[in-house]
Amino acid sequence: MPQNTQQLAATAANTNQLLQQYRQYQDQALNLDMTRGKPCSEQLDLANPMLNILDSTDYMDASGIDCRNYGGLSGISEAKTLFSAYMEVTEQELFIGANTSLGLMHDIIARSMSHGCTDSAKPWNQLEKISFLCPAPGYDRHFSICEHFNIKMIPIDLLKNGDPDLDEIERLVSADSSIKGMWFVPKYGNPSGLSVSDAAVDRLAAMECAAPDFKIIWDNAYNVHHLTAQHSEIKNLLRSCEAAGNANRVFMIGSTSKISFAGAGIAVIGSSCQNIQWLESHTAVQTIGSDKINQLRHVRFFKDLSGIHAHMEKHAAILVPKFAAVQNVLSTNLAGLGIAQWSTPTGGYFVSLNVMDNCAAKIIAMAKDAGVILTEAGATFPYKNDPRDRNIRIAPTLPNLMQINLAMEVLCICIQLVTIEAQSTDK
Amino acid sequence: MPQNTQQLAATAANTNQLLQQYRQYQDQALNLDMTRGKPCSEQLDLANPMLNILDSTDYMDASGIDCRNYGGLSGISEAKTLFSAYMEVTEQELFIGANTSLGLMHDIIARSMSHGCTDSAKPWNQLEKISFLCPAPGYDRHFSICEHFNIKMIPIDLLKNGDPDLDEIERLVSADSSIKGMWFVPKYGNPSGLSVSDAAVDRLAAMECAAPDFKIIWDNAYNVHHLTAQHSEIKNLLRSCEAAGNANRVFMIGSTSKISFAGAGIAVIGSSCQNIQWLESHTAVQTIGSDKINQLRHVRFFKDLSGIHAHMEKHAAILVPKFAAVQNVLSTNLAGLGIAQWSTPTGGYFVSLNVMDNCAAKIIAMAKDAGVILTEAGATFPYKNDPRDRNIRIAPTLPNLMQINLAMEVLCICIQLVTIEAQSTDK
Repeated sequence: MPQNTQQLAATAANTNQLLQQYRQYQDQALNLDMTRGKPCSEQLDLANPMLNILDSTDYMDASGIDCRNYGGLSGISEAKTLFSAYMEVTEQELFIGANTSLGLMHDIIARSMSHGCTDSAKPWNQLEKISFLCPAPGYDRHFSICEHFNIKMIPIDLLKNGDPDLDEIERLVSADSSIKGMWFVPKYGNPSGLSVSDAAVDRLAAMECAAPDFKIIWDNAYNVHHLTAQHSEIKNLLRSCEAAGNANRVFMIGSTSKISFAGAGIAVIGSSCQNIQWLESHTAVQTIGSDKINQLRHVRFFKDLSGIHAHMEKHAAILVPKFAAVQNVLSTNLAGLGIAQWSTPTGGYFVSLNVMDNCAAKIIAMAKDAGVILTEAGATFPYKNDPRDRNIRIAPTLPNLMQINLAMEVLCICIQLVTIEAQSTDK
Repeated sequence: MPQNTQQLAATAANTNQLLQQYRQYQDQALNLDMTRGKPCSEQLDLANPMLNILDSTDYMDASGIDCRNYGGLSGISEAKTLFSAYMEVTEQELFIGANTSLGLMHDIIARSMSHGCTDSAKPWNQLEKISFLCPAPGYDRHFSICEHFNIKMIPIDLLKNGDPDLDEIERLVSADSSIKGMWFVPKYGNPSGLSVSDAAVDRLAAMECAAPDFKIIWDNAYNVHHLTAQHSEIKNLLRSCEAAGNANRVFMIGSTSKISFAGAGIAVIGSSCQNIQWLESHTAVQTIGSDKINQLRHVRFFKDLSGIHAHMEKHAAILVPKFAAVQNVLSTNLAGLGIAQWSTPTGGYFVSLNVMDNCAAKIIAMAKDAGVILTEAGATFPYKNDPRDRNIRIAPTLPNLMQINLAMEVLCICIQLVTIEAQSTDK
């Protein structure tokens, strides 16, 4: 037990006071949801002009394609210009999909399973075992895709600097050809809020992989989702892979779900030309094309990359006070007690909170009993198994400031009560 | 050779006259595309009010869901009301997808391959052989999905009344458990223009299948796409399947691609509750939900089923003269010659033309040399193999009247020239 936990006064008086506070919150019949990374109404309002930005005089793309009609498998011309800038790839290295980056990632895996991907000798489903590296804590929906396709997940420690444990990764991929890929949220990670270092990008690009068709799903969901003026920038993994002679190693994923409308954005892939051709040849069997009108709406509204950046400053103005409130309540109640550590993200959608080992599930259950819903314990780990049962993901974007303050107060009380109980049991 | 082909005057004079006409068309450097069932601009214009029908005051569904945000896997409440009426199913039997019915069909097959569907003992890809029945001529993109997943296609004759050969189907499915399903466009078929009889619906629903998980993909793409006041109505296959104790046998597919916008419509599935639950459980891994804003646009614009019907009368007004032009040129040039037979559809998007055996590919190539692009020979058959090389699919919706007349004139000349040559070789 760390020394400074002594500062948590586990006296009967203090415990009683915390319990009393907890019961008062219980009596309020709260219903506060801190679970998912959904934008709030005020954020969505920022893109409202998109709803009627087109009209009966404006539905053609720059190359003369009628966006209302069939066709355009990989996207309309000006959307390619906008999103190739956004993804830092050429237009030939870009694929524009529908409204769901999750769907693009799911389908990459589904297609690799049924047909194999570039550099595969066989469809993955014809191999005895397939494994994926899962830096954790990470994004639960990545892990769900692996479970769905019966892909074995190998947890990888996420280091304090935001890099996955590269020593361990290099050791594993060089020896085991069943390891076919890796998930990662490289920038303002979910839930860590951390960004990957240039050195780690280069190591991922250059490492020797026993599987020639090893694929990194580089889910850059928070590319422009800054919370401070100090923007995190990460190295372009596709370029590093190219330089290392492994151009087909990465699918970089982007999305405007948390830029324009969460349910009606545009999802994109940046990858090698060969990977894009592979993708297009499969997608051509599945669809005649994604919604080009929605692509045109995005282009008309954002115009160019600087338009996206300017828009995201407005998002930040809404989100900064919410993230500050989380930090403020955590600090006020828990700073110095040594019973919890939390991230102070400079971007993204989450605060990652680590409590004492074996306490997260109990804390989350206790908060729920007081009407504060937090992401399920273990959700940020493969198989929902947080080996130390300590990580809690806090998603402060959707609730309003009052709700955040209330929910965090309840959470802090639960953390203290559960920790006091755990420490008394330890003795 | 049929007797009345004698009426095609294969005299040198006539042949020379036809050749001269052909060369005159060649000199015009035509570029006429009669290949794909795409709506024309005037049809798309009809839905233009949808482009800006929403605004910053209108983005919530009737149940209070913010359509701009994440969620709503199976669709928003008022879209469920509209499309359950359209599909003649309950809201629990409905799934609302993205803009592509092809994608829904592709994903049903992909998921059945990787996981099996309702009533499957195993994923289909773990079986030695999978076959699908393919009434032909049919829709080429159905056949592409089979090819993509290495599903053996068994061609089934489409009878003159619009029914697939039920005797043959019943014989095959009762004996062969590798036959896992069947494609069909039941109404105003592609390319036949014909609709299935009530008796055939009931036989498909009730027939004994060796495969317990036999699935009919009932692609009702032209449900409300009438060309005359005499609307074709087909029996509800889901209800017949239910009555026969085979509720899970059918996925009925619908789409507004040829009602609202071809590239930005809404695709839907009507099926048993168990099939819909299967679908949702798989789709939940792939996406957080389809574009709900676009669902709301459709509801605001069409309001209800009668709104869709009224809208389709405007489509018909645009299309009827085009289909009449095709009939007119064919009749004027070929009637009574006995060298070609063609459909006179009362709905849908195509005219199906059968020429003399072994002539279709030559005719299509010859037309192409004069700048008239027709659907590739064989495209309407599995493996692009038209065993009699006689079917030509004509898609008159996209070109304007002048283009249709011109293209059909060229086609009729090519038909005559190729037939004369074939007959002279026969002698």
